[in-house]
Amino acid sequence: MAERTDSDTTRRSERSRRAIYDSALELVGETGYGKLTIEAIAAHAGVGKQTIYRWWPSKADVLLEAFLDAAGRAADEGGGAALPDTGDIVADLRTVLRATVDEFNDPVFEAPYRALAAEGIANAGLGAEVTAKILEPRLRLFEQRLSAAAEAGQIASDVDPRMAVELIVAPLAQRWLRRTGPLDHIYADTLIDLALRGIGPRRV
Amino acid sequence: MAERTDSDTTRRSERSRRAIYDSALELVGETGYGKLTIEAIAAHAGVGKQTIYRWWPSKADVLLEAFLDAAGRAADEGGGAALPDTGDIVADLRTVLRATVDEFNDPVFEAPYRALAAEGIANAGLGAEVTAKILEPRLRLFEQRLSAAAEAGQIASDVDPRMAVELIVAPLAQRWLRRTGPLDHIYADTLIDLALRGIGPRRV
Repeated sequence: MAERTDSDTTRRSERSRRAIYDSALELVGETGYGKLTIEAIAAHAGVGKQTIYRWWPSKADVLLEAFLDAAGRAADEGGGAALPDTGDIVADLRTVLRATVDEFNDPVFEAPYRALAAEGIANAGLGAEVTAKILEPRLRLFEQRLSAAAEAGQIASDVDPRMAVELIVAPLAQRWLRRTGPLDHIYADTLIDLALRGIGPRRV
Repeated sequence: MAERTDSDTTRRSERSRRAIYDSALELVGETGYGKLTIEAIAAHAGVGKQTIYRWWPSKADVLLEAFLDAAGRAADEGGGAALPDTGDIVADLRTVLRATVDEFNDPVFEAPYRALAAEGIANAGLGAEVTAKILEPRLRLFEQRLSAAAEAGQIASDVDPRMAVELIVAPLAQRWLRRTGPLDHIYADTLIDLALRGIGPRRV
């Protein structure tokens, strides 16, 4: 009987947690981060606000975990977190960057990440967490794929892998965050081409 | 006499405006954008808050104008807004990107711009203004310099100038805003080198 009760509690907790995550992600898209409150998340999720405060110290923590949970489930559905490796770095980068463009154009994904990025830019403490938990793992996946490409002779071997990654992902991220231009598949393809060839004069 | 009074009023207004700008820039660095208030700016500047509301509808507008005013004065001191053109694009980009690194490492410059960037990322309306008034004019200066370099055969002529600019400035901006790595002159030089050569395999 004790066991049965424990598992009921676990199931209820899990249901509450899921409802809190869903509510945080949905509400931040509707109201923006500034107007998001623990009270509103609790009301929307149908739990008491003490339930939220018992698990998370602030709305930033709720939203960050909710986002990581959703991203983790999306990665599982997509067959894991590693970048594709078909042996063709250009094709693989196109696949990944086009998918990134699609994510940045999807309000369900982009609204909470935009809110976390903006708040992390303003507040160094949260920013360190957002960078460490969302951005850095992503950059490392690119680094690994580019290192494999360097070994295969498809990427210059004398380039710092981290700087190579930033050359590819930062322009796309800037267009998204600062809304400086169109963000579509053609842009993704052109960016990859440009990062590989560079903007210097063409050698003939 | 009427003329004298007008000019006194103008001088007082100008003094108030300057005090409001200085206060906005100073306070945002101390308290962050979220806790910045018109009341605090007014108290710090020694003016009534109605004086501020008469000139600007919101704290975002005060801060944006204060930043643009400071940036404009800095550009005047530096001999104008155009990028240097010594005829050597690599040397000129190094000069400009090193100066940008110095600005991003200077709390007096970077605190208000970081606050405006973060708030603009979260709020599309302010973001459009920040991008149009701060970021876009800067990108256009780079575009002009790169176009001159393309004509001189120092930059590939088949590259979209806007994408070329983003390849250079976005990685630096990302390091600054997301705090993903060191931001120093060596980084600036390496970034320029990488953007010019690309990360693709070296042709021999």
